[in-house]
Amino acid sequence: MPSKRKRRSKTASSCEALPDLESVEMAAVRIAGKALRTPIIESSMLNGLVGGRVLIKPECLQYTGSFKFRGAFNRISQLAVSARKAGVVAYSSGNHAQGVAAAARLRDMPAVIIMPEDTPEIKLSNTAGYGAKIVHYDRAAGDRKAIARDIAGKSGAVIVPPYDDVDVIAGQGTAGLEFAQDLSVRGVAPNALLAPAGGGGLLAGISLAFDAYFPETEIYSVEPEGFDDHRRSLKSCKRSRNKKLTGSLCDALLVERPGKITFAINRSRAAGGLVVSDDEVRMAVAYAFHTLKLVVEPSGAVCLAAVLSGKIDCKDREIAIVLSGGNVDAKLFSQIITA
Amino acid sequence: MPSKRKRRSKTASSCEALPDLESVEMAAVRIAGKALRTPIIESSMLNGLVGGRVLIKPECLQYTGSFKFRGAFNRISQLAVSARKAGVVAYSSGNHAQGVAAAARLRDMPAVIIMPEDTPEIKLSNTAGYGAKIVHYDRAAGDRKAIARDIAGKSGAVIVPPYDDVDVIAGQGTAGLEFAQDLSVRGVAPNALLAPAGGGGLLAGISLAFDAYFPETEIYSVEPEGFDDHRRSLKSCKRSRNKKLTGSLCDALLVERPGKITFAINRSRAAGGLVVSDDEVRMAVAYAFHTLKLVVEPSGAVCLAAVLSGKIDCKDREIAIVLSGGNVDAKLFSQIITA
Repeated sequence: MPSKRKRRSKTASSCEALPDLESVEMAAVRIAGKALRTPIIESSMLNGLVGGRVLIKPECLQYTGSFKFRGAFNRISQLAVSARKAGVVAYSSGNHAQGVAAAARLRDMPAVIIMPEDTPEIKLSNTAGYGAKIVHYDRAAGDRKAIARDIAGKSGAVIVPPYDDVDVIAGQGTAGLEFAQDLSVRGVAPNALLAPAGGGGLLAGISLAFDAYFPETEIYSVEPEGFDDHRRSLKSCKRSRNKKLTGSLCDALLVERPGKITFAINRSRAAGGLVVSDDEVRMAVAYAFHTLKLVVEPSGAVCLAAVLSGKIDCKDREIAIVLSGGNVDAKLFSQIITA
Repeated sequence: MPSKRKRRSKTASSCEALPDLESVEMAAVRIAGKALRTPIIESSMLNGLVGGRVLIKPECLQYTGSFKFRGAFNRISQLAVSARKAGVVAYSSGNHAQGVAAAARLRDMPAVIIMPEDTPEIKLSNTAGYGAKIVHYDRAAGDRKAIARDIAGKSGAVIVPPYDDVDVIAGQGTAGLEFAQDLSVRGVAPNALLAPAGGGGLLAGISLAFDAYFPETEIYSVEPEGFDDHRRSLKSCKRSRNKKLTGSLCDALLVERPGKITFAINRSRAAGGLVVSDDEVRMAVAYAFHTLKLVVEPSGAVCLAAVLSGKIDCKDREIAIVLSGGNVDAKLFSQIITA
């Protein structure tokens, strides 16, 4: 059993509506049998390379190809039967889109997803494949939240936010709960946990679980160069904005700034933020292909990139990382692995 | 606990030296902490597509990128300290090569590997990367066993056969033991088990475990078109030869005929053999990329190909399959996933 002591009081006091370990545990009950309990993967080659132990949670193997199904299903499965006809609406760079579309289909609900025009083809076709209606917008100029509110206002659909929502965060936290439980079974209390950060939902959810199981584990966000809003925000303790919204290989991690609810959790728990370049991400995607035999999309490979490029000290340490998704276009993947 | 009743007496009586469940269990103790205990993976998409449940053992995630490390390590770890200096010699189409090279390195032993000239580049470079010395031969014209005997005769090295060896079979059987144990935990007694067959070592090893845990499960070999020696041998109850030794995408499954020891086990246990075409294999490799997010080499994908092409009835059934390896050249993989 994990020790449930609070590390710092800030988390509890800054906002009444914050999710906690119990909400993650309840989410785990809801998603059981719907989401895959992803395993922990280890590679002797990788361990030998870094001189330590890297414990990998491959969420690329998750239903819909990313962890996002967890949060989407946890939110959507709690909607009242009376809300089902009007359905749901969501805005997403692609992985949340697929999560919402798949979860809505499991509940026989219509879904409308607002997606950037530069979304990878695989994410568009999969989302449509789950039966969702897609509305495009310009990532740099459009206001996706306003479009969602407009659609919801007209149709009565419920908005399922990509990260700044207590149920979505609790759902993503189930990845952290499984990870913590399975690490405990192995007798591993990792020195550090690395998770990719876009809006910060996965990081916040995992933190809720790790805070209970491994209060001493250092938690780091990992972001692409030029989109290090979490790193800067964690340093200043204030939500900081990115200067741009396009221009990285990591299409799933490009948000304006950390979420309000997610950051209320992350600022009290995360030790700091790591940053990786597009070239380091390409190297990690190729390494995952050649050595781990996993298909990981660029955004999903940032933690592996941080490990391989020495952004986190792995020597004689145990480092837990999340490979958050695997939805990458075949053409881009081919370019990366044959480079 | 599995029921240990013998299904048919033929297995036990046909050869005194056959491995049994106990030798597999002892192998599992030897490889613990050296080989990865690979998980069971399930895909809602795949299950939905076939209308049943497909339980996947992804041995592509195994150390060295295939199940072959299991058998190699089980054999090599039992060599006397006095035999270590002279080292080991093996002949292999690539995955056994890597398994032997990696296992020998773990025991600080030299390894010489005899490999066909048409071996995929990744298998050659990985084998060399584990520190083994590579000797090339012509797959169609050369006699790899004679070359190995010659080297062993001169150097005193021990030959580690790719499949027709009780310790190698017992080692491969650990994949089946884990699979059976983890299926049992899930409460699944599969209707059928599919394993790729080259020399038949994996199939035989798995059969030893499944015979104890799931005596009612139908066991099938899966082979590439034109190299269906197991299918024909199982039908006639006699070891039948392939007409050719080259000319399939599945480089790891091209052997002359089933092994003597492996077939003594397989003929009494396997229900029959399935055959897939190169095109069906390509489709399976692409499906594993797009949907499962796993990197699977052509030979490793034959069971998935059998499932996807309807060679085995999955409707309302539970089918256990092994994805046996992931060592595929980036260029070929790119061609397949972008086709």
